[in-house]
Amino acid sequence: MSEKWVYAFDELNEANTFCGDEWDEVRGLLGGKGANLADMTRLGVAVPPGFTITSMACNAYLDSKEGLPPDVLAQIDEALADIENTAGKSFGDPSNPLLVSCRSGAKFSMPGMMDTVLNIGMNDAVVEGMTQLFDDKRFVLDSYRRLIQMFATVVMGVREQPFEDILSEYRARREVPNDSGLLVEDLEEIVEKFKAIVARFAGRSFPEDPTEQLTMAVEAVFRSWDGKRANDYRRAAGIPNDLGTAVNVQTMVFGNMGMDSATGVAVSRSATTGENQLEGDFLVNAQGEDVVAGTRQTSGIDELGVVMPELFTELQTYADLLERHYTDMQDIEFTIENGKLWLLQTRDGKRTAQAAVRIAVDLVADGIISQETALMRVTPEQVEFFLHPQFESQAKLTATSEGLLLTTGLNVSPGAAVGIIALDANLAESWSQDREESVILVRPETKPDDVHGMLASAGVLTSSGGRTSHAALVARQFGKPAVVGAAEIAVDLNARQITVGQMTIEEGDWISIDGTTGEVFAGKIATRVPDIDDMWLMTLLEWADGVRRLDVWANADYPEDAERAVKLGANGIGLCRTEHMFFNPARLPIMQDMIMATNPVRRREALEQLLPLQRMDFAGLFRAMTGKPVIIRLLDPPLHEFLPNYDKLSHDVTDRKIRLTAATTLEEVDSLLREIEDTEKIMERIESLHESNPMLGLRGVRLGILFPDLPRMQIRAIFEAMIEVNNEGVEANPGIMIPLSSDAAELQPLKEVAAEIAAELGELHGIDIEYEFGTMIETPRAAITAGELAETAEFFSFGTNDLTQMTFGISRDDAEKNFLLEYLRMGVLRTNPFDTLDARGVGTLIKGAVDAGRRTRPGIHVGICGEHGGDPASIALVDSMGLDYVSCSPLRVPVARLAAAQSALSNP
Amino acid sequence: MSEKWVYAFDELNEANTFCGDEWDEVRGLLGGKGANLADMTRLGVAVPPGFTITSMACNAYLDSKEGLPPDVLAQIDEALADIENTAGKSFGDPSNPLLVSCRSGAKFSMPGMMDTVLNIGMNDAVVEGMTQLFDDKRFVLDSYRRLIQMFATVVMGVREQPFEDILSEYRARREVPNDSGLLVEDLEEIVEKFKAIVARFAGRSFPEDPTEQLTMAVEAVFRSWDGKRANDYRRAAGIPNDLGTAVNVQTMVFGNMGMDSATGVAVSRSATTGENQLEGDFLVNAQGEDVVAGTRQTSGIDELGVVMPELFTELQTYADLLERHYTDMQDIEFTIENGKLWLLQTRDGKRTAQAAVRIAVDLVADGIISQETALMRVTPEQVEFFLHPQFESQAKLTATSEGLLLTTGLNVSPGAAVGIIALDANLAESWSQDREESVILVRPETKPDDVHGMLASAGVLTSSGGRTSHAALVARQFGKPAVVGAAEIAVDLNARQITVGQMTIEEGDWISIDGTTGEVFAGKIATRVPDIDDMWLMTLLEWADGVRRLDVWANADYPEDAERAVKLGANGIGLCRTEHMFFNPARLPIMQDMIMATNPVRRREALEQLLPLQRMDFAGLFRAMTGKPVIIRLLDPPLHEFLPNYDKLSHDVTDRKIRLTAATTLEEVDSLLREIEDTEKIMERIESLHESNPMLGLRGVRLGILFPDLPRMQIRAIFEAMIEVNNEGVEANPGIMIPLSSDAAELQPLKEVAAEIAAELGELHGIDIEYEFGTMIETPRAAITAGELAETAEFFSFGTNDLTQMTFGISRDDAEKNFLLEYLRMGVLRTNPFDTLDARGVGTLIKGAVDAGRRTRPGIHVGICGEHGGDPASIALVDSMGLDYVSCSPLRVPVARLAAAQSALSNP
Repeated sequence: MSEKWVYAFDELNEANTFCGDEWDEVRGLLGGKGANLADMTRLGVAVPPGFTITSMACNAYLDSKEGLPPDVLAQIDEALADIENTAGKSFGDPSNPLLVSCRSGAKFSMPGMMDTVLNIGMNDAVVEGMTQLFDDKRFVLDSYRRLIQMFATVVMGVREQPFEDILSEYRARREVPNDSGLLVEDLEEIVEKFKAIVARFAGRSFPEDPTEQLTMAVEAVFRSWDGKRANDYRRAAGIPNDLGTAVNVQTMVFGNMGMDSATGVAVSRSATTGENQLEGDFLVNAQGEDVVAGTRQTSGIDELGVVMPELFTELQTYADLLERHYTDMQDIEFTIENGKLWLLQTRDGKRTAQAAVRIAVDLVADGIISQETALMRVTPEQVEFFLHPQFESQAKLTATSEGLLLTTGLNVSPGAAVGIIALDANLAESWSQDREESVILVRPETKPDDVHGMLASAGVLTSSGGRTSHAALVARQFGKPAVVGAAEIAVDLNARQITVGQMTIEEGDWISIDGTTGEVFAGKIATRVPDIDDMWLMTLLEWADGVRRLDVWANADYPEDAERAVKLGANGIGLCRTEHMFFNPARLPIMQDMIMATNPVRRREALEQLLPLQRMDFAGLFRAMTGKPVIIRLLDPPLHEFLPNYDKLSHDVTDRKIRLTAATTLEEVDSLLREIEDTEKIMERIESLHESNPMLGLRGVRLGILFPDLPRMQIRAIFEAMIEVNNEGVEANPGIMIPLSSDAAELQPLKEVAAEIAAELGELHGIDIEYEFGTMIETPRAAITAGELAETAEFFSFGTNDLTQMTFGISRDDAEKNFLLEYLRMGVLRTNPFDTLDARGVGTLIKGAVDAGRRTRPGIHVGICGEHGGDPASIALVDSMGLDYVSCSPLRVPVARLAAAQSALSNP
Repeated sequence: MSEKWVYAFDELNEANTFCGDEWDEVRGLLGGKGANLADMTRLGVAVPPGFTITSMACNAYLDSKEGLPPDVLAQIDEALADIENTAGKSFGDPSNPLLVSCRSGAKFSMPGMMDTVLNIGMNDAVVEGMTQLFDDKRFVLDSYRRLIQMFATVVMGVREQPFEDILSEYRARREVPNDSGLLVEDLEEIVEKFKAIVARFAGRSFPEDPTEQLTMAVEAVFRSWDGKRANDYRRAAGIPNDLGTAVNVQTMVFGNMGMDSATGVAVSRSATTGENQLEGDFLVNAQGEDVVAGTRQTSGIDELGVVMPELFTELQTYADLLERHYTDMQDIEFTIENGKLWLLQTRDGKRTAQAAVRIAVDLVADGIISQETALMRVTPEQVEFFLHPQFESQAKLTATSEGLLLTTGLNVSPGAAVGIIALDANLAESWSQDREESVILVRPETKPDDVHGMLASAGVLTSSGGRTSHAALVARQFGKPAVVGAAEIAVDLNARQITVGQMTIEEGDWISIDGTTGEVFAGKIATRVPDIDDMWLMTLLEWADGVRRLDVWANADYPEDAERAVKLGANGIGLCRTEHMFFNPARLPIMQDMIMATNPVRRREALEQLLPLQRMDFAGLFRAMTGKPVIIRLLDPPLHEFLPNYDKLSHDVTDRKIRLTAATTLEEVDSLLREIEDTEKIMERIESLHESNPMLGLRGVRLGILFPDLPRMQIRAIFEAMIEVNNEGVEANPGIMIPLSSDAAELQPLKEVAAEIAAELGELHGIDIEYEFGTMIETPRAAITAGELAETAEFFSFGTNDLTQMTFGISRDDAEKNFLLEYLRMGVLRTNPFDTLDARGVGTLIKGAVDAGRRTRPGIHVGICGEHGGDPASIALVDSMGLDYVSCSPLRVPVARLAAAQSALSNP
């Protein structure tokens, strides 16, 4: 029995409903487009008749090197005859000609990679007949010259240029800007000239025989599967080379055959808001290109209900049918030819983040999809989009066209922000607070002592730094839009201005930044704020909470953060970084006193000043979290981070030395000398704290072991805060977390200190102070010896940033400046391990640590609190490893809730 | 049946020969000293009769709180009666008194921790009798006052002070420096006064009853087991608290009973050279204390052969017997009482490194021990001692007594060195080479560009830096004696002098440093060089080679290094650090050109200049190794290490700016401005290479991926060098090693480059270029993903320094400056993981990587090449994990050979 190479669109009848793997097989055979056309036909949608030549035929053709096998040709003839019967038209018959298109359609969409030929079936005689039939010679001639041009270039391998040269020549002669200005007599001449080009460059004349046209077109489409462009695309997209493409031959329909003809596009629900109503545009008596080209003013789809009410109802019916069939919002192309509605294509429609969420939720309400499917329909990135202000699209387009786009940097923290430029943190804070201005903090880069300025600003822009720079990390943490590493921007702190190319902007001038795209604009661009309270999003996230295994907590250092986190759905605080509390300008000097203290008594004095402030911080957190877990990490960063910048002090000294040479009075000399001496003293202390590799230096638990008064103060503050809020009737559920441990012996003394202080305060206040004592796992050794650590630690929190740094031996601060981005570009690394947790290396350590920890202490609570806690791929990874929770910045909490649900659904 | 609490020394007869666990049990019961005294008695050695009260009795006494159990007392009486019978003397009998000593003796030696009472059995009546018996009233009275004083303080808890006050008073009265100047009448008065002190402070009189004396003494010794001093010692030494101590009661013998009496000490072989002949000192008519005190001139033991030839022969016989019995050189205390030789104690003798080796080898020749036992008898540290010059002991003592000891720093690289001070590397080199002076390079600290100066110097001294500072690492590597972190030394680079306290030493003056002890002396101290060619050491190390499993290779960068390594027994080079070749002053400028190059063409020009130099380096190594494996690591350190010091440049600029304000001519201004600009350009480049954590930055394979011309040049140089030496008939067996990899994808491109160059050169020269391609494992991720790395890598070499740094998250450069030493002091860490490989953390990674690597590539060759490669404990660890080799600095090779043998013997 001969193989079946050709399937008519209507050969899939109701008996042929495919699902799962079967449908996949059908798509492999007929291609995506062919399968869909058949599917629509089966559903009773009016699709212009046609047939699909299978991808098997493509492979057979490419293998044989001798043209299409006779079997295939015979089956094409048969299928074409069926179309002719159905359409009541005849291929090549001038009195009633059938025209067809010939389009590629592979299993996986390869947009623009392969070839298409339209209007097949025209020749001189058919042109003659059509002119009489349609009474529009211009249209007919234009269609004909298009066929010749398309056929010549796609099928016969003639270059495009000679055709375009002729068209240019005629446009110039008529002094018109585009082809629609050409006259009928021009087109008649052009058709002859095009034929001459074919004869000259292809070595044979344009085939007048429609069947020859079709055969050649089919072969050309098949050959295009093997073209360089398609091969390159497949290599990049990972599509196998042996799939082959199918070819769809379909009756041409024309929307430009009079006032009872039309053409248009429609989506089954609003792509902007997701509202359940048909949206789209159409043109009466027009072709598809006219709608897209924008040369004629289109009408809204509602208008179709007025001019062709019955067809509008039919379209609505089709839209509902297809939406229900494909279980998603559909984007439909249609043509009305002499009062008959034809659907040319349907596909899942593109949509905004808001629409995606509303459509998913509404489709559940409409009974079309399940809650689980709805959860898989919305991407975590779409949820994130909800949380940040965005520029009004029109306002941004206008600004761009006006040349206000200054540069594009790294898009490290999403959202749009508009404000006046402040070039230092203190100014940013004072302008924001005193003058109530919206401020953008612009710096070469940021440091921990800029944090108060970042918090006071609407957004942050730096000229250097990478995706994991301080500015990026802090901005993401606090949900501040930020663009970093905008290297074209020169920040002149002396002249108090920034320069981009020839353009200079003064401090205090307006600027707009888009942290979602990395764009930086001069001036103000209007923004709009999507709403997290969106009822559809709330519903979706509630469903997510119902299916996810992972708990979602937030990293929060301040009560406001904690409140926001709870509002966004966080069930606890997984990381409170106590050092951020010390960078507050009111406290930094006390902290500095503590560090500069040359004896323990002075140090303790400073700590006593800090105690009530810390207590206040913690009490605020406990109140905000009302009994939910609050994990407080003891002081982590190296002490030098709290001291002034060495280079600045050094410059001060140099300045004074230079002034010294010009000093004229003894008093002046004395005073300068004294200032130099004092500054040099501070510089000495900074130098004594200097480390070659501070990341691996005196920080974390090491500080606590060397300066035990420090953790004592912090632990006391935690317990006193518990007692304070308990007296107000608020429950507190703290965890004390030790950073950077690498050996179980580091934990024991601090656990004892905590127990001792808890006992002392418990006795004093007659209560039982309950807390958990745990550790971060952020050194590889902590992960490897987790079984030992779990003897002391009651919980683990993986600090995946540091763990990634140490496991790879890559410094976060330097990596993206030098080799990491290059590694990604070269493909040495496939993903940035600071964006997405490295499963093979870091993941192996984490899995081993979790298992070892649970062997020692069954049920030990484990989570991650690095930047990865908000990354969907990383969430899926740690979910698969059986962790209990992720903790991420508050604004990522909704993202994490959805990602955790998707992980649970994907790997039940 | 009542328990047996007391054992006479002679109760161990020939039937009672114990071995292994049994002997351990005997030592547990009788204590080490008691067991030995019994053992000697059994062997027929003349030991003063006595008995041991068991440690069980100690525990029974300490538990009961009611004094010695009656059983014990009864058995003591019995045993004492036996001694009286044997000695023909009687306890408390004035006419023929038996005196005994009462000494503690626990299972494990606890020197000085517990109490002793001598001369028990004296009272007023006995004194009277003894005076008549011995005709030496002074001796008898002195013995009596000693008993009272010792008994009062040890047994009755009286303070020492009142007794010493009285002795001082009498010495002052007689104007004599020590007690031997006191007269008989003084001692008579002193005895009375001592008794009065006892009566006053102890609340009872001194017990005249000898039996009471003995009972009280035994109880006191038992109690001392539970004293604070002993408890502290046991905690530190890890000795269990429940062992208890035994007590040995032994007849007193006196060497001061006339000219036929004597006392002395002897070792069975020379403790200095190991030569097989009795060595020692003795005094006729003297007590043990006299020999030790040095108040009388002792005679050499040979002299005993002259004055008492028979007893000398007897002593020699005992020495041989005991040596054969204890299978080691013996340190013997003896006393001759009225012509009778008594041995009081024997123990394994202390010895120098040289003696230890010779004795071990000779004992094998004498058939006393096996080769295996000999290998376990010598410590790796003793082997190391062989390899470094040492100060002549006498010269050092003299220098110390003359106040020339300036200070003591960290003893980071052993050996003594003497030279003139040079304060910078260039000067050190030129003085050493041009003036052929022995130089000590003295610096605040060293940097990579000081290495040529370090190599040219006899030793290195720095005022800052820790055990793992650059100076320490390089000095150890090259076997240069070094003292670092001598913080009391101020190095004044302007005045060209160093200052310690009030003492100033000019550059060019002589200085002597001891890297074994950390001492720094002004002036020249004579040194002597032990010889690695020592025939006994050679023999021992050959035996070691016969039993060890681990191969021993060396880290060597230069042909001279490699030659020395081979001479010291290395079977290959496990690490050639190519960067050291670039720090050579002739090459550094080319290297700097390469780094400063702003385009690839310039960079390649510089590399082409380096190629022939590298080829020469490698050819030299291949010649030195004659076919043994040579693993060459491609460039590893961050580029900034090759550039000048930023701070120095910065100071230069400041200086020029200050001079600018005083400039008087336009030319001067112009020239200064130009200099400032040039310097600032270099500073900019340095700044652009600046990294916050260079350890985790752009170095290792990352350099090779980003600047592929660099590894290309190095690989080409390796292969060209192979061809060059092949033409001379020398085989070359290179391994190309990639540093700092963390992902398999980093290795593949470099492996391809190597294959490509090998193919090209192989074709050109018509030969087959054979080499191995491998990687260091020094990031935790490389260890975790070793199974994947082994698909590309043909060998692994663990870089345990970096692996330790990253696994712990501890920066080697900073660690000992801040918290690491404190951690060790506090016991948070038990050993410095940079000295001895951390078994639980880093070791787990290594073991996992070895196993994974071998699963992928069975038989893959694996070793370590960090500092740990020369550390005995680390060698034992990697041996137990089945690694193939260790590679260490050449001078550690003999140490590693022995350590590897000991590991194989300990864990067969």
